[in-house]
Amino acid sequence: MNEQEKFMREALKEAEKARKIEEVPIGAVIVQNGKIIARAHNTKNKKSNALFHAEILALNKCAKKIGSWRLLDCDLYVTLEPCPMCAGACINARVRSIIFGAYDAKAGCCGTLYNLPNDQRFNHRPQVIGGVLEKECAEILSSFFQELRKRDKQ
Amino acid sequence: MNEQEKFMREALKEAEKARKIEEVPIGAVIVQNGKIIARAHNTKNKKSNALFHAEILALNKCAKKIGSWRLLDCDLYVTLEPCPMCAGACINARVRSIIFGAYDAKAGCCGTLYNLPNDQRFNHRPQVIGGVLEKECAEILSSFFQELRKRDKQ
Repeated sequence: MNEQEKFMREALKEAEKARKIEEVPIGAVIVQNGKIIARAHNTKNKKSNALFHAEILALNKCAKKIGSWRLLDCDLYVTLEPCPMCAGACINARVRSIIFGAYDAKAGCCGTLYNLPNDQRFNHRPQVIGGVLEKECAEILSSFFQELRKRDKQ
Repeated sequence: MNEQEKFMREALKEAEKARKIEEVPIGAVIVQNGKIIARAHNTKNKKSNALFHAEILALNKCAKKIGSWRLLDCDLYVTLEPCPMCAGACINARVRSIIFGAYDAKAGCCGTLYNLPNDQRFNHRPQVIGGVLEKECAEILSSFFQELRKRDKQ
């Protein structure tokens, strides 16, 4: 198992925590010098806050931990391709790279609908690597929504 | 003075609070049913957190206050055109409208570099109105940066 898959498995563990509390299962971890320094999962419904995506929560924890708004040597791992808010947050925080699992046809802004981190007009361009453990990252989401639809029919 | 200018003056008061603590002077207020329910100013440097844009802080307060992630009847007023992170946050939070003052040639995503809130592929489209009290909103920023450059030369 390579480094990227190793850390994506940790992001998947976070996604699993979200699933257990009936949140859309998306998880993130931030890695600095080979160590996880922040981890978070989506809590949008539980906390009634549209900002509480896994990435935002992890970036927030990370900034508090390292005491700087510049996360230049940090890599963000997330199970789903970031939306505009989260891709923008990574640009603002000067994250070194964004590594994601599943592609998001509905809101993905790291290659799918837009490629915001690759826009040279912004003052920082995180490197983007998509599709790491794509199958597992997509599967946890699709099974969550299948389950939801089954319950709705009952 | 119309409604839009009235609330933009309140956002400018927030920007002024940022200026006083030597932050880039950007302020925001959120209005629901004709009343301001959240106000915030940029504290990125003071709090060492790249997420702490005026809009994000105001949206966060607003969600806590109304206890819902859906801010469907809320209008966000901000002195500078939102960046990708903040424009994306408004889409995610289903803000009704984004009213901004100055245009941002470097990172504006509500008409300048992108028009994210007008993209029908996202599941919500906030209305966008730009240029409200544009001169005042641009002026507080340009005088802040002029002052900064003067000090740097000393």
